[in-house]
Amino acid sequence: MLSGDMAKPLLTCQNADGDLSSPASVGTAIGILGSGDFARSLATRLVDSGFKVIVGSRNPKRSMNLFPSSAEVMPQSDAVKKAEVIFVAVFRDHYTTLCELTDLLVGKILVDVSNNTEINHHKESNAEYLASLFPQCTIVKGFNVISAWTLQCGPRDGNKQVLISCDKQEAKAAVGAIARTMGFVPVDMGSLCAAREIENVPLRLLPFWRIPFLLALSLFICFYIYNFIRSVLHPFLMEHKNKFYKIPIELVNVTLPCVAYVMLSLVYLPGVLAAFFQLYYGTKYRRFPDWLDQWLQHRKQIGLVSFFCAAMHAVYSLCLPMRRSSRYLLLNDAFKQITAGKDNAWVDEEVWRMEVYVSFGIIALGLLSLLAVTSLPSIGNALNWREFSFIQHSPLEDFSRRKVQTLHG
Amino acid sequence: MLSGDMAKPLLTCQNADGDLSSPASVGTAIGILGSGDFARSLATRLVDSGFKVIVGSRNPKRSMNLFPSSAEVMPQSDAVKKAEVIFVAVFRDHYTTLCELTDLLVGKILVDVSNNTEINHHKESNAEYLASLFPQCTIVKGFNVISAWTLQCGPRDGNKQVLISCDKQEAKAAVGAIARTMGFVPVDMGSLCAAREIENVPLRLLPFWRIPFLLALSLFICFYIYNFIRSVLHPFLMEHKNKFYKIPIELVNVTLPCVAYVMLSLVYLPGVLAAFFQLYYGTKYRRFPDWLDQWLQHRKQIGLVSFFCAAMHAVYSLCLPMRRSSRYLLLNDAFKQITAGKDNAWVDEEVWRMEVYVSFGIIALGLLSLLAVTSLPSIGNALNWREFSFIQHSPLEDFSRRKVQTLHG
Amino acid sequence: MLSGDMAKPLLTCQNADGDLSSPASVGTAIGILGSGDFARSLATRLVDSGFKVIVGSRNPKRSMNLFPSSAEVMPQSDAVKKAEVIFVAVFRDHYTTLCELTDLLVGKILVDVSNNTEINHHKESNAEYLASLFPQCTIVKGFNVISAWTLQCGPRDGNKQVLISCDKQEAKAAVGAIARTMGFVPVDMGSLCAAREIENVPLRLLPFWRIPFLLALSLFICFYIYNFIRSVLHPFLMEHKNKFYKIPIELVNVTLPCVAYVMLSLVYLPGVLAAFFQLYYGTKYRRFPDWLDQWLQHRKQIGLVSFFCAAMHAVYSLCLPMRRSSRYLLLNDAFKQITAGKDNAWVDEEVWRMEVYVSFGIIALGLLSLLAVTSLPSIGNALNWREFSFIQHSPLEDFSRRKVQTLHG
Repeated sequence: MLSGDMAKPLLTCQNADGDLSSPASVGTAIGILGSGDFARSLATRLVDSGFKVIVGSRNPKRSMNLFPSSAEVMPQSDAVKKAEVIFVAVFRDHYTTLCELTDLLVGKILVDVSNNTEINHHKESNAEYLASLFPQCTIVKGFNVISAWTLQCGPRDGNKQVLISCDKQEAKAAVGAIARTMGFVPVDMGSLCAAREIENVPLRLLPFWRIPFLLALSLFICFYIYNFIRSVLHPFLMEHKNKFYKIPIELVNVTLPCVAYVMLSLVYLPGVLAAFFQLYYGTKYRRFPDWLDQWLQHRKQIGLVSFFCAAMHAVYSLCLPMRRSSRYLLLNDAFKQITAGKDNAWVDEEVWRMEVYVSFGIIALGLLSLLAVTSLPSIGNALNWREFSFIQHSPLEDFSRRKVQTLHG
Repeated sequence: MLSGDMAKPLLTCQNADGDLSSPASVGTAIGILGSGDFARSLATRLVDSGFKVIVGSRNPKRSMNLFPSSAEVMPQSDAVKKAEVIFVAVFRDHYTTLCELTDLLVGKILVDVSNNTEINHHKESNAEYLASLFPQCTIVKGFNVISAWTLQCGPRDGNKQVLISCDKQEAKAAVGAIARTMGFVPVDMGSLCAAREIENVPLRLLPFWRIPFLLALSLFICFYIYNFIRSVLHPFLMEHKNKFYKIPIELVNVTLPCVAYVMLSLVYLPGVLAAFFQLYYGTKYRRFPDWLDQWLQHRKQIGLVSFFCAAMHAVYSLCLPMRRSSRYLLLNDAFKQITAGKDNAWVDEEVWRMEVYVSFGIIALGLLSLLAVTSLPSIGNALNWREFSFIQHSPLEDFSRRKVQTLHG
Repeated sequence: MLSGDMAKPLLTCQNADGDLSSPASVGTAIGILGSGDFARSLATRLVDSGFKVIVGSRNPKRSMNLFPSSAEVMPQSDAVKKAEVIFVAVFRDHYTTLCELTDLLVGKILVDVSNNTEINHHKESNAEYLASLFPQCTIVKGFNVISAWTLQCGPRDGNKQVLISCDKQEAKAAVGAIARTMGFVPVDMGSLCAAREIENVPLRLLPFWRIPFLLALSLFICFYIYNFIRSVLHPFLMEHKNKFYKIPIELVNVTLPCVAYVMLSLVYLPGVLAAFFQLYYGTKYRRFPDWLDQWLQHRKQIGLVSFFCAAMHAVYSLCLPMRRSSRYLLLNDAFKQITAGKDNAWVDEEVWRMEVYVSFGIIALGLLSLLAVTSLPSIGNALNWREFSFIQHSPLEDFSRRKVQTLHG
């Protein structure tokens, strides 16, 4: 990129011999069309990052006070002349109002920062719609995943990534450099057709977690009610024994592993069903039915919820001997043993059952922890699929099953 | 890339004015040579991702039924004419059978997706061998790290990265864009000479973990047998005491910290040896012997296995008071104390030893947890080497040593 | 990049038709200016990675023995003629000594690997200073984040990233390819103005952790002293009761949750203050005072220290029943109960208080764990801000508050 047509700078206004990869230098002019919340936050952040900000407004006098004092506010037609990269901070419905600027915008880079109110709201993404209105501009999708609040204060914690898509490599690099200068991490999402996906990102709320979470919750409630009736209500009604103190800990503790087991079986069941499906239909090149496909895709989340329940069960179990109730029951047992004159309380079968049960429980928890750790994105990315499936399809079920058998055996 | 030679699209067949960075648009023709398992999965996935798939087969009529109906199956010579990017899903041994297509393939992008059966099987990587056969094609190595199963169903969980290497930037970008459209994450591995490394990736099975794991396992077995003889077999033979109930938990619990200590010392020992080596040979610019080099490279894995043993020891210890056996022994002690008429069971030395021992154990576990967390790739990448060594060479050994001294003191 | 000016190779000396993206091929000549520790480690690593290394020294004869035998050592003026990429491993103060080579260096790529002794030591970064001295060279900043030790042995564990910045895309790609061949992961940090930031990286020592850590430490000391006086010293002085055994575990255990609570409130307090600040000043487009800004930026670290204290409190609590002291106290209680002839030790209020207290504790720990997990960079990056704030502003405070109320209620 040292000579020829390529050397013409896209961003710097002076048309001096520059380089494409360093357009985000201090003092570069950046345009903003719009005067809403997002436009103002964007202006604040750009000014703080050392850019010269030029705001195009329909009513410059009224908007003046809303923007930082070092940003220049002027009529839209003047503003677009002064910058090569222009942020379009305008709602999709008002894109057509910019059509009067069409001639002035030829060859400019327009950054579409818009979001929708619901997933896949329009047939085409906002960015592609903007591109169809201004075919002679380069449209870049980006910054929509950043909230106005984050923009204004600068990136602090959580996600600092700005997803960017564009059909022209140079424009993408230019906007990426601006994002980096503002303190964000640009992520190249490919060509503009990825805009739809990028526009859906901020609307997502843990989509893969909703079903596993609701499933675990309803399982918990069912098992809890059953255990409550069996261990508390029945003894109270039939024998007038007050066992209500079991409600906060003991009942939760016996309910959690039930939930964990059902969830764990739901992780491995769809794989078995898929195998049966393939055997039955004679070929593995036929698509699974939709519900099975959905199920297969939620396995990781179901497995992690199962792990969470198992870990909580472990913590609850470990807390049992710490409770007052356990202490009082032990003291009463000591009293009974002594008044009965029994010098040895030992019951060998009870001892063995508990030792083996606890032992399987610990080993199952250890193996589940390894599974959970390999589910972390940064570790999963370092494994190849052979290693991943080696760990994920471990003999874990075995141990869990044996633990249950031991207790009820 | 706005004008000149550069503007000629590499991928789109229409030769219209396009852009290199967006070749993966819906409807682009992609060629596949081969009709094996991988070729069919690839075709299914490409069709599902919106590409027009053209399969080149030696026997189109027989292959027809194996591929999705929307893929066109035709003789190899016809297929390669219709696509600019062609996946070569053929075994290395059959590459030479493609030589009759040499003239038709000039200027095309060939994607080598082959794998080997063992690490470093051939002198040169498959991709470089293909490049030597077709010097007028651009060879891209990629997609070999993806299994046919993952390809067919689309990326679900685990690693979604597709490692790509190529000598030409544009071809690499084009194949990367195809990978992204298919739902994978392309990773640029540099020039084609990285193909050997990429071809070795799928053959790896946790290579750095094997030795630390086997080491821990053999240490565990040795210490376990020793402890079994000492705490169970000897009392049984000499005093006819039945302590076999200790097998599942208590023996494991005393064995685990021994393994953890030996492993932890093996983490820090090679650093000491390396220092001695350098002092002895007078210069730090001489290579370490191979065994020391290997050892130094496995330190992280040895340390994490040590942490896992320490964490399991903690869980086992916490489970001790929960067991029936512990309850019965306590009841028997109460019986003895009362029949002896002793109103105070307190032994100050025993109390202090246990308090200090448990205390050091907790602190050591806390420090080891910090070490383990900084071993996560995403956290390690956020640290500079000064911070990393500050945390990793902490006064951890100190605490561990003191814990042992306390118990045996 | 198939034809035209662009095809001229930047790196290979033969000026043959090559390609820009594969300059790091085996045998490429790389120059090094300097003969210090870093220069020698760099030479060792480059030789081991298959490059031809040419060292430019002021006194070649003396330097010869310091470098690996396969590196050529020659006068500076000869060395710079033989390589296109030259590492400048010279202190900033000696940059001017290179000015005599100015004519020979025209058009070369100079890699600035220098570090400073303190953060922001000079007005301009070393790399920009070098660029001002050699305006006809392309300056690349890089490799300064790697220690001489890591360079010499090759990347082993921890951070393998090499931060690179440069104004010319090709030079950056060329140096990035060299880094990748050496086994490091090049990270594009944008244009040369990022050099200042890159030069500050190795001087950082967990800057965001210092204040939270010191805060936690001083809170711990204060609360510990208070608890020591209240639970140990006062009973000893007033009632001559020896409770000193509480020092290692029980006192730490009651101190840790106090620290955790204060730290947790310090996570949420600045957000409340910021809201008040904005309400009071009538607009949200005014900057926060510096202390509030700093505080807001440390929230994540304060929160993680709080989580660490809470987790340690959990482990300490779980260890309580394991101690000898707990066993002896229980035996003494049994003795007292029996000598008093009391057949039931049960105190319903005590039982309920403990059950509810432990129950809230477990739930709070579970929620804090979720917070801590989403603080991992690789998971945070997978969340959008809506998901992140949904998890991070959970009803956690609620549970913690109730736990305290239960105990003291």
